[in-house]
Amino acid sequence: MQTLIKNGVLATATKTEEADLLIEDDKIISVGQGLTVEDAVEVIDARGLYVLPGGVDVHVHLDLPMFNTVSSDDHYTGTKAAACGGTTTVIDFVSQETDDLLGCVAKLRQKADARVAVDYGLHMNITHLNPRVEEQIPLLVKEGVTSLKVFTAYNGRLRLQDHEIFRVLRIAGEHGLLTMLHAENGDLIELLVQEACLNDRKSPVWHARTRPAWGAVEAVMRGAALAAVAQAPLYIVHINTSGEVDMLRYARDHGVQLMGETCPQYLFFTEDDLARPDGAGWVCSPPLRTAADQQRIWKGLKEKTVQVISTDHCPFFLNGTKPILYEGKEVAIPGKELGRDDFTMIPNGLPGVGDRLPVLWTKMVGSGEFSINEFVALTSTNPARIFGMYPRKGSLSPGADADIVLWDPRLEVVYGVAHAQQRTDYNLYEGWKLTGYPLRVLSRGRTVYCDGTWSGKPGNGKFIHRAAFTGMV
Amino acid sequence: MQTLIKNGVLATATKTEEADLLIEDDKIISVGQGLTVEDAVEVIDARGLYVLPGGVDVHVHLDLPMFNTVSSDDHYTGTKAAACGGTTTVIDFVSQETDDLLGCVAKLRQKADARVAVDYGLHMNITHLNPRVEEQIPLLVKEGVTSLKVFTAYNGRLRLQDHEIFRVLRIAGEHGLLTMLHAENGDLIELLVQEACLNDRKSPVWHARTRPAWGAVEAVMRGAALAAVAQAPLYIVHINTSGEVDMLRYARDHGVQLMGETCPQYLFFTEDDLARPDGAGWVCSPPLRTAADQQRIWKGLKEKTVQVISTDHCPFFLNGTKPILYEGKEVAIPGKELGRDDFTMIPNGLPGVGDRLPVLWTKMVGSGEFSINEFVALTSTNPARIFGMYPRKGSLSPGADADIVLWDPRLEVVYGVAHAQQRTDYNLYEGWKLTGYPLRVLSRGRTVYCDGTWSGKPGNGKFIHRAAFTGMV
Amino acid sequence: MQTLIKNGVLATATKTEEADLLIEDDKIISVGQGLTVEDAVEVIDARGLYVLPGGVDVHVHLDLPMFNTVSSDDHYTGTKAAACGGTTTVIDFVSQETDDLLGCVAKLRQKADARVAVDYGLHMNITHLNPRVEEQIPLLVKEGVTSLKVFTAYNGRLRLQDHEIFRVLRIAGEHGLLTMLHAENGDLIELLVQEACLNDRKSPVWHARTRPAWGAVEAVMRGAALAAVAQAPLYIVHINTSGEVDMLRYARDHGVQLMGETCPQYLFFTEDDLARPDGAGWVCSPPLRTAADQQRIWKGLKEKTVQVISTDHCPFFLNGTKPILYEGKEVAIPGKELGRDDFTMIPNGLPGVGDRLPVLWTKMVGSGEFSINEFVALTSTNPARIFGMYPRKGSLSPGADADIVLWDPRLEVVYGVAHAQQRTDYNLYEGWKLTGYPLRVLSRGRTVYCDGTWSGKPGNGKFIHRAAFTGMV
Amino acid sequence: MQTLIKNGVLATATKTEEADLLIEDDKIISVGQGLTVEDAVEVIDARGLYVLPGGVDVHVHLDLPMFNTVSSDDHYTGTKAAACGGTTTVIDFVSQETDDLLGCVAKLRQKADARVAVDYGLHMNITHLNPRVEEQIPLLVKEGVTSLKVFTAYNGRLRLQDHEIFRVLRIAGEHGLLTMLHAENGDLIELLVQEACLNDRKSPVWHARTRPAWGAVEAVMRGAALAAVAQAPLYIVHINTSGEVDMLRYARDHGVQLMGETCPQYLFFTEDDLARPDGAGWVCSPPLRTAADQQRIWKGLKEKTVQVISTDHCPFFLNGTKPILYEGKEVAIPGKELGRDDFTMIPNGLPGVGDRLPVLWTKMVGSGEFSINEFVALTSTNPARIFGMYPRKGSLSPGADADIVLWDPRLEVVYGVAHAQQRTDYNLYEGWKLTGYPLRVLSRGRTVYCDGTWSGKPGNGKFIHRAAFTGMV
Repeated sequence: MQTLIKNGVLATATKTEEADLLIEDDKIISVGQGLTVEDAVEVIDARGLYVLPGGVDVHVHLDLPMFNTVSSDDHYTGTKAAACGGTTTVIDFVSQETDDLLGCVAKLRQKADARVAVDYGLHMNITHLNPRVEEQIPLLVKEGVTSLKVFTAYNGRLRLQDHEIFRVLRIAGEHGLLTMLHAENGDLIELLVQEACLNDRKSPVWHARTRPAWGAVEAVMRGAALAAVAQAPLYIVHINTSGEVDMLRYARDHGVQLMGETCPQYLFFTEDDLARPDGAGWVCSPPLRTAADQQRIWKGLKEKTVQVISTDHCPFFLNGTKPILYEGKEVAIPGKELGRDDFTMIPNGLPGVGDRLPVLWTKMVGSGEFSINEFVALTSTNPARIFGMYPRKGSLSPGADADIVLWDPRLEVVYGVAHAQQRTDYNLYEGWKLTGYPLRVLSRGRTVYCDGTWSGKPGNGKFIHRAAFTGMV
Repeated sequence: MQTLIKNGVLATATKTEEADLLIEDDKIISVGQGLTVEDAVEVIDARGLYVLPGGVDVHVHLDLPMFNTVSSDDHYTGTKAAACGGTTTVIDFVSQETDDLLGCVAKLRQKADARVAVDYGLHMNITHLNPRVEEQIPLLVKEGVTSLKVFTAYNGRLRLQDHEIFRVLRIAGEHGLLTMLHAENGDLIELLVQEACLNDRKSPVWHARTRPAWGAVEAVMRGAALAAVAQAPLYIVHINTSGEVDMLRYARDHGVQLMGETCPQYLFFTEDDLARPDGAGWVCSPPLRTAADQQRIWKGLKEKTVQVISTDHCPFFLNGTKPILYEGKEVAIPGKELGRDDFTMIPNGLPGVGDRLPVLWTKMVGSGEFSINEFVALTSTNPARIFGMYPRKGSLSPGADADIVLWDPRLEVVYGVAHAQQRTDYNLYEGWKLTGYPLRVLSRGRTVYCDGTWSGKPGNGKFIHRAAFTGMV
Repeated sequence: MQTLIKNGVLATATKTEEADLLIEDDKIISVGQGLTVEDAVEVIDARGLYVLPGGVDVHVHLDLPMFNTVSSDDHYTGTKAAACGGTTTVIDFVSQETDDLLGCVAKLRQKADARVAVDYGLHMNITHLNPRVEEQIPLLVKEGVTSLKVFTAYNGRLRLQDHEIFRVLRIAGEHGLLTMLHAENGDLIELLVQEACLNDRKSPVWHARTRPAWGAVEAVMRGAALAAVAQAPLYIVHINTSGEVDMLRYARDHGVQLMGETCPQYLFFTEDDLARPDGAGWVCSPPLRTAADQQRIWKGLKEKTVQVISTDHCPFFLNGTKPILYEGKEVAIPGKELGRDDFTMIPNGLPGVGDRLPVLWTKMVGSGEFSINEFVALTSTNPARIFGMYPRKGSLSPGADADIVLWDPRLEVVYGVAHAQQRTDYNLYEGWKLTGYPLRVLSRGRTVYCDGTWSGKPGNGKFIHRAAFTGMV
Repeated sequence: MQTLIKNGVLATATKTEEADLLIEDDKIISVGQGLTVEDAVEVIDARGLYVLPGGVDVHVHLDLPMFNTVSSDDHYTGTKAAACGGTTTVIDFVSQETDDLLGCVAKLRQKADARVAVDYGLHMNITHLNPRVEEQIPLLVKEGVTSLKVFTAYNGRLRLQDHEIFRVLRIAGEHGLLTMLHAENGDLIELLVQEACLNDRKSPVWHARTRPAWGAVEAVMRGAALAAVAQAPLYIVHINTSGEVDMLRYARDHGVQLMGETCPQYLFFTEDDLARPDGAGWVCSPPLRTAADQQRIWKGLKEKTVQVISTDHCPFFLNGTKPILYEGKEVAIPGKELGRDDFTMIPNGLPGVGDRLPVLWTKMVGSGEFSINEFVALTSTNPARIFGMYPRKGSLSPGADADIVLWDPRLEVVYGVAHAQQRTDYNLYEGWKLTGYPLRVLSRGRTVYCDGTWSGKPGNGKFIHRAAFTGMV
């Protein structure tokens, strides 16, 4: 079956042009002006709209167990929320539940394949290293899992020692995997959290005060050093402080294959938001920082020191337990209230997978500070390139998957929980006035969202067998 | 309301006598021969039956997350299965999800209180020690959580270092808490598991071969030494090897406050059962051992070196994912098949909470090797004493909770999954011929099971606020 | 050159008989009654004397750096003291200064070869394990270093983790090396020492109180378990508590290749000696224990649970710094006074290499509790066998090295620092009345001591290239 | 007694002026033009000479045990060599032999006080942290030991974990102590050294290749971050890479109290020197780097990012064992030849305490790149300020100690081992042509060196009771 999108303005990471676009089944097969087709075709009139490659969010957590509860978006609701916000590809993380990495991947796929509404990929967390795990890392490549995540924080739980991170980097580098780093200083956090609690400082703002920014800065430099010696690429997740951007800049200038992402929450909120009555709703790790950090990160995006904006989507209910569908059934899952009296009990994470594109469009493109091409690069093309999905994702070239957003730059929305499809009871951007919003979203050629109506289905998304890392962005 | 049980033979840990027993509301109020009551009373004729205090199983895991799945009995189905098998009190474990111990207890109670069908208590796992955790341990006592569990195995996950176990023991000892020890050598296991997997030895029998018995033996002695120096009591869980019994004997003879439990699986099965086609169904930690180990443990029970038989109940489905009720709804939860190709992925644990009393009666009392009083001591009175519930539990004295089993010593059953109420699809004792079985079970004066019919309800059980440890058994 | 020893009573580990013994150069060449020789021979009349194989002390520390000082006997003075007390073979330890084990051995040999007055061997300490060290362990065998020492105490300094000890045991077992274990619980010691010091408990007796006996007991069992799983032999050094003997007995009865030694200090002194004004002079690790421990160790020797009595010789000056010859020159080296105000600063160790045989003869043979053969077995033949030197050492058979003691069973001595040749200013046995004493000592056929006169020389001893471990004693 | 130095040109960190200088006993009492004195005075004519405050070398190791040998300069020969090169104050390090820090200090002073020829101070190494050690750190201040040294390298030997370094920093900061950091990544080094050795890469150049520069860079940033969070000052020792200077600059610009030193060897030699036939003579830790690193460090000195040039003096003999005086006697001590076949066995360290001022004068002042005032600041005044000795040391103001160098800017020397008084058999600067050299050196008013003749004596130096840290330089 063919679909023709006519009269739109195609915008990619590199150019903006008026052109038509022809889809057959799930692929783009032709792009050009005045395309004509013969028969049996659906024609979409995109006059006045931008035609963008679907958003790519390489950092989401779906159905993630934490502190005896689980994040509130599962593989269906999370991918649905993504799509309604213009994002047609996400990458989730596989926990290292056991040392059988392939088994862990298989297990997650078994659950997710049947539920995703748009395409998805998987990163593998490495949180426990031994010879057996080392032996399996290269085998992940042929499973299409070409990225690993390691942590310098969460002592005794997720953290690897420096020499272990180095080993991971080296093996990954030699076999075409990209290593991602959660960069904070676990020792400092462990010690400061204890002291805060022993002094009965348990309100949400102490979540931020016990995770010092300098710890993130040094951990980025530490990661850079390990990557430099391992001669392997490294990707810093959720950059949140100015110093991290500085270190990224420094390392890149000195030949280290370092890349990084930030997330919208670090661009729009600060530690002050944790002091709000509903501060628990702003508790994520790393924590929100300061206005000065925001400025430096914006500059880092502009100067291409930071290449990606993802979300670290990991929502929980804010206002008490709500009944949700879990494993296909309605169940009640506790949320942020678990930490009402103690910040260490607040499930860490924020909603965002659906908010990302609408909010950023207004703040980046609408403000005139970023071009549409930069917007596309940061939210779709760069992440697709870095994570082995380009040009299948993140592009509008013939042969690419027909993941397409028809973006209406004039549509005005007073945004909030009522718009977002994320399964939680609050929204970080409640009441924000946005101009520019997705009108229609296609995933693999199929319209899944159009003007407020969802038409996607669980299982329609596919697991993306990602290619090996091929080079810096 | 009053209930009179007449004409039965009362058997406790210390004596066997014909007597009547009068219950008012949820308490036993009188015991004696020829009791008469006036009015408004239910009279149960127990002629030909033994009247026993309800069983006490101090080692069960309900709704326990493991390897991305969860054990298949939750707080309702597990306590129902217990009661149908004559056990009217269980103790479950609180995971240390965060360092806020009281918060962890509260969270589990929030879930369990509403669902238990019989009374239950909680042990607190200590798997991560720091000053804040140390500070909170004594506060558990007034919450009625007067026992802690620590591990010498599961490096990097649950294990504490020796000096941490010592600290826990000392704080516990000073504040009336009893420490429980999972005694295996984590270093050996970690190393041997890796080597086995690297050599592609992944069938279930390797689960046993990578957890050597000598590691359990030394860990018991290590625990004994730490307890001796801390001058604190210690309770060894799930004794499974002859050497552990020897060490327990040695330490007790040398003044150490050491106690221990075994479980039926260690008395009736061996490592050979792991080599069966359905060997995954016999995978538990510590693993099953040898016939020689069984003999020494039996002797240890007889000579009172081992004081308790509990179950370590923690079932999973054996033959594929089954739909079960979870959080009140039907969901599908993976089971033992997760480790079909790799023993390290098999969820660890066996069903047993309901099997315990019927199987042991036949094998202990029916065989003539143990008296009924010894049977009651090992399965009800001793555990109640050790864990601060006696004489409320484990006794038939006036004032005790009316948790009572009417045991028919002549009832013959070909036992198996069809009888057991445990929520799983197999039974360790399938096809065993048992003689002697519960006819009727009362929890707090209320009949919950009678002759095959269940009449209990979720939430009818209560959390037992256990007393501080008072002395050795 | 030949030497004929006539008319003596030869006593070995297995028999006592009147016989002559003929030496040619450094070897025994003939043993028999009425030996006649032709010419050019020295004849020693041993009428009234016992002819014993020279003592073998497999646990001595010479010129050992500790706490910024060094033990006061070097390779010359220590071997001289040994010889004057009837011991003609010692084994010293090589510290793992770097990971080049062969280099460490070569370095110590470079120093010691030129200075030893009697034969000596070397054990290799393994205190830091990594793949390179593992690779080198088997290479030690062809250097004649066929034993390793590991520690469960001295956290962060000498201690190996359990899995490292297991690796050492396994490699050692596969290549014919014997592993020796210093068995204490390092975690307990570290914690108790800190607490004692923070509470200003710094007198010498706290040295013993902070190293609990139970820690030694469990460490022996831990070592036994690791050895059992590794299927390798293990030798427990300086057994000092009754429980260690019990564990040794238990493990041997259960098929573990476990052996052990005690030292005279643990047979004759107790923790009370640390409370003396000169208690620092009795500070050694493990510490002295109780009279009950002594009794159990004696019994262990008698029943062959413990096979060896060595000394752990490691002297320091007790009463202030004394000028000594170091590296051939007179220097002043601090001693026990370093810890005058703080037991943690007292250099650990006691003199004993020369005291061993005279003191033990009186207490074992003179008391009638042990036969001369048992005495020889425990102090010469067993250690020679266990450490790959038999029958070259520890025997009087033709072909053996002519290391011979002519022992006068009637010689009476009021023993003490004036007799002992050990380079320190005190003696544990000051004023003890001994009956039985060496009259003449031959090392490799050469008389080095005779009736109070020393005639040995530095460099006359040789390094003993020991054979691989061949089996249990 | 008074001494008048007339007609010289006084040069300090801040100015250069013709002036006379009057000394009474060990103090400068007056500075001015045309000073006249009455009687009983020695007059020194300094016409044509610079009058400088004596050099201050805050990083020397004297009589330091390493790898079973000891560094070849003891407290006498080392301070003599210093003085002959114009340095009249040194600071040595106290090893944490035990946890009794005050005892460790006392022990070193007992040895050093009697032997130093010029004044000296002590830093305390913290290489093992526990509550007792933490308790003692503040007590060091009143002993005049107001600086601590910690390590991120030497895993399992000297290294502290990050949280321990943070604790040290915080305690130090609160009590007026300055923390010094040896900044390398111990994990990387341990791993790379092992791999090199397993691949038989054992020549000296592998010493450098296994200690990557990036590891030093990240460790400086890590230290900076810990110091920032602890709000405490930190001093980086022996800066050797360009990246360290960059990090120092970054941290200082962002408000961190960070300071640092480099050493002449890092300014004049490179990794290539390790490939020389006598490369072992250039083995020090951290290792020598590249010409680019040298340039950045020079720039760092010029721009005041790096405040101090010290030496890390720690010599060993290069060409075989030489007889030296040790503890007052002649002994033979092995040197660099220990690592002939294996770089891991080479004692780490270089001579330099005496070379520093002559070499730097020619290269800094003689080259015209630095003023004399900058030279004095970097080698005398800054270190005296930073380490609590100013204005007693590092100045020529009245009241200061009369530690004075009369520097002849025209004196030409072909430098080398024949000139240097350092007790070793080689010199890094052999054959270098120097212009400018000390003519006469006074320590506390006493001439100790004059025109090639030494007149100092052991014990004439004094321990300097240093003041608390007062602020950044």
